[in-house]
Amino acid sequence: MKIVIIGGVAGGASAAARARRLSDESEIVVLERGEQPSFANCGLPYYVGGLIETRSKLLVAPIEMLRQRHRLDVRVRSEVIQIDRDAREVHVRDLQSGREYTESYDKLVISTGAAPFRPPIPGIDSPRIMQLRDLQDADRMHDVVTSGNRRSVIVGAGFIGMEVAENLVHRGIHVTVVELADQILPPWDPEMVAGVQQHLIEKGVELRLGETADEFVDQDNELTVRLKSGSELKADFVVLCVGVRPESGLAVQAGLQCTSAGGIITNDHMQTSDPDIYAVGDVAQVSDFISKRPVQVPLAGPANRQGRTAADHIFGRPSTYRGTQGTAIVGVFGKTVAMTGHSEKQLLRSETAYEKIYIHPSDHAGYYPGATGMTLKVLFDPATGAILGAQGAGTNGVDKRIDVLSMAIQAGLTVYDLEEVELCYAPQYGHAKDPINMAGFVASGVLRGDQPVVHVESLGNGHDGSVFLLDVRSEPEFAAGHIPNATNISIESLRDRLNELPRDKPITAYCKVGQRGYLATRVLRQAGFDAANLSGGYTTWLQWQKA
Amino acid sequence: MKIVIIGGVAGGASAAARARRLSDESEIVVLERGEQPSFANCGLPYYVGGLIETRSKLLVAPIEMLRQRHRLDVRVRSEVIQIDRDAREVHVRDLQSGREYTESYDKLVISTGAAPFRPPIPGIDSPRIMQLRDLQDADRMHDVVTSGNRRSVIVGAGFIGMEVAENLVHRGIHVTVVELADQILPPWDPEMVAGVQQHLIEKGVELRLGETADEFVDQDNELTVRLKSGSELKADFVVLCVGVRPESGLAVQAGLQCTSAGGIITNDHMQTSDPDIYAVGDVAQVSDFISKRPVQVPLAGPANRQGRTAADHIFGRPSTYRGTQGTAIVGVFGKTVAMTGHSEKQLLRSETAYEKIYIHPSDHAGYYPGATGMTLKVLFDPATGAILGAQGAGTNGVDKRIDVLSMAIQAGLTVYDLEEVELCYAPQYGHAKDPINMAGFVASGVLRGDQPVVHVESLGNGHDGSVFLLDVRSEPEFAAGHIPNATNISIESLRDRLNELPRDKPITAYCKVGQRGYLATRVLRQAGFDAANLSGGYTTWLQWQKA
Repeated sequence: MKIVIIGGVAGGASAAARARRLSDESEIVVLERGEQPSFANCGLPYYVGGLIETRSKLLVAPIEMLRQRHRLDVRVRSEVIQIDRDAREVHVRDLQSGREYTESYDKLVISTGAAPFRPPIPGIDSPRIMQLRDLQDADRMHDVVTSGNRRSVIVGAGFIGMEVAENLVHRGIHVTVVELADQILPPWDPEMVAGVQQHLIEKGVELRLGETADEFVDQDNELTVRLKSGSELKADFVVLCVGVRPESGLAVQAGLQCTSAGGIITNDHMQTSDPDIYAVGDVAQVSDFISKRPVQVPLAGPANRQGRTAADHIFGRPSTYRGTQGTAIVGVFGKTVAMTGHSEKQLLRSETAYEKIYIHPSDHAGYYPGATGMTLKVLFDPATGAILGAQGAGTNGVDKRIDVLSMAIQAGLTVYDLEEVELCYAPQYGHAKDPINMAGFVASGVLRGDQPVVHVESLGNGHDGSVFLLDVRSEPEFAAGHIPNATNISIESLRDRLNELPRDKPITAYCKVGQRGYLATRVLRQAGFDAANLSGGYTTWLQWQKA
Repeated sequence: MKIVIIGGVAGGASAAARARRLSDESEIVVLERGEQPSFANCGLPYYVGGLIETRSKLLVAPIEMLRQRHRLDVRVRSEVIQIDRDAREVHVRDLQSGREYTESYDKLVISTGAAPFRPPIPGIDSPRIMQLRDLQDADRMHDVVTSGNRRSVIVGAGFIGMEVAENLVHRGIHVTVVELADQILPPWDPEMVAGVQQHLIEKGVELRLGETADEFVDQDNELTVRLKSGSELKADFVVLCVGVRPESGLAVQAGLQCTSAGGIITNDHMQTSDPDIYAVGDVAQVSDFISKRPVQVPLAGPANRQGRTAADHIFGRPSTYRGTQGTAIVGVFGKTVAMTGHSEKQLLRSETAYEKIYIHPSDHAGYYPGATGMTLKVLFDPATGAILGAQGAGTNGVDKRIDVLSMAIQAGLTVYDLEEVELCYAPQYGHAKDPINMAGFVASGVLRGDQPVVHVESLGNGHDGSVFLLDVRSEPEFAAGHIPNATNISIESLRDRLNELPRDKPITAYCKVGQRGYLATRVLRQAGFDAANLSGGYTTWLQWQKA
């Protein structure tokens, strides 16, 4: 068996290593266009920022190791320029020598990844406009940030944009972020990143949301970024982080089925429309774990698993790729936002029925020093309670909760199951009722009708009188800030003041985070009122105001 | 409906709050013997140690809140002295006034907890011998540690013993720990706590394992602790942490069915043998989530869920308690050990078939600063791959992995499922192949026969010649330390030196953590050798040596 793998990072490297373990006899050729296979691409922003000090740390699997330990025929600076499916061979160009040659294969794995998108904007070709995909990009940016440049514009506020922003600030460089959407981190729902947006501003990052760069003018040793709104930004350099496009040119040329967005269509063994050719990683179109619909999700974890699946299948194993769940995390100046499964936006787009809840727990018991707050949002099927997605934002412990929820989704669990999970508890790690349990209690309470919820968005101008908005916090809390037109009756005095409440219209109760609002809802409903709880309370309301 | 709850901490407090939410009309009486209901008992050691500075922080749900917000009739310093099932009433003694009275109930919830065991050892009644259960105990110990006492002996190296040890050292007090077992933290398997044992010693804690205190002599202003071995320890005070016993005297007296160990037998609605009486928390015997066998597990999380279940059932809801999984965690001087499900010890005791694997990953990508090592052990059914238990030890990220595995057990997942989970990945949080995935890869590889494993214990003196022990690490690694009688052939040169290996006996390959050993096993088996991998490699071997 001779396996040729195009691209030696993430999915390609995993496919190669797995293939070697399954067959010590096979000939395995890895053709990598860059200078290094299997480098730590997720570490690049931190190398630019100086947090990772040594470049060699980024070389997670040096060529020598792959060659000697895995007996892989790794060829770097080797670009595949054509796939000849009939002849079962690839045409390779050695970028060092310029020599071209063909290499035959029994099975071919395409792991060419995705290239940063470079939109066709006037001036886009300025050498002051950079991208961050590979080690060479990182080297270039490293030079730029350590040679006196002080003003930067980042176009795009996705994962990479945010990581680059943090690292440029770390280098003492002023950052302005231009983002088309009205929020940073567009995969998340807007209210979930409102806190991080605030945090970015506090760190000195300038945000231009709902904006696009329409033109770049490189002149007099600086770059002028002209925005859609007409305003201009001056910068020493620009980092483009506006997403990636599958690098599927070879596949298209070879007649493999691709999507209109350029993803190579694969089945659940990662086979393309040619059963001898597999595609893995960011170049492949896969299925969504939850909806089973086709998706294009550039993530490192899935890429690795896909590589493994492809190698398994090449050697006759029944492995299947279960689909991508969309679990993602990003750290921004010490804050963490994470998600798994579908966002509310996605559910709205796909017209999927859902309900949602918000909670605002601390990462560990409040009486133990160092507790920090977080917001968790859980989206679920209103009929079955099946968990459809979850998002978290905070400082500590967010990754843990989203990982647990990711496992729950993977297992097809419901919000009722979350009530019962038994998680690690000591006061420095969590709560006797972990945020996961709390999310389960709240969501199940909604589904059981114990606690109908109202959401901030649906409040709209609902506090116009059609709904009685009841703030059940204490007087000092109310005085410090409340939702307009709310009436304050503390939960402690509520039972004695029921006669002050209307029986002819719905009541929406709220407190700081939703707990007292829940109790109030229980009290009121049992007393015959048409009451609901504002999910997430005043805290969620504030997040929406900022979003 | 009138509900009487005996004991207002954890399970009792949860039952009361839940009952109130389900019924705002009911009369709910909480009879608490101590001075405070619902205090943070898991925080007591940290209050003693000074990490929690303010005592009031321990009062998580002050009486006034329970009374005003939840309209609970909370009576502290109120001891129930008898349950009269026929009359459906309890006899109460007001410890303040000495007054006795009866209180009727429709439903009774017993949440009396478990009392620290005080073994009948000569001298046990010395006032220098303390225990840590409630706020009064904590106050007393707080006084002792802040008034010049410098030498302590802790008897018992379980959770509380370890937490107290850390906190006494934090106060500058010398600590000697006496433990009957040959290891600290007996719920864990010995090799999993070997590193923490070492860590304790480095922090100045003296460990006396396999020892018992046979006599206490209180004289000349000091306490002499005579050990089984004959040696003596001098101390200013002793803390007894030798486990707890269900405080079920009332239940026994009332003729409720109890186990020989004193646990009140409950069904899955937390009902005792009297359907109008429920028992929750440390006093109740529940079923084990995995084996479904009866168990007695004193843990805060389960106690809270049981209280909730009891309240639900009282109000006609079909809630059932799924059983206790045994998820536990303890922090010891910055190290974390955690577990969920069954330990290997338990599986051996119950004669359950199992296989196991060890991995030694870092908590996050090694190239990102601050990565720390951990050991994960996963126990699984060799026939189905169902996860039976997991343990972790390390510095950061251990709680996260055990929580994810706890969720996997809760969902009935197998090690094959762990291969596929999609967890949060950015380099400061984890790995593209998270330790959870790695555990899945390794365990599944064992079950699929790709990677037969040998365990350190079974090596015994197996490196006596009956097995060929092959160290596939580099020469410098080998030179720095290896298993006796091993032969060193690095993985890089293995394929060229196959002729040096025996074909007439089994080969056990090992490396530092098991990864190169796995590759060697693959190479050797494909070349026709009878090879297996030493699970966890030299690192696990070292842990066993220390255990």
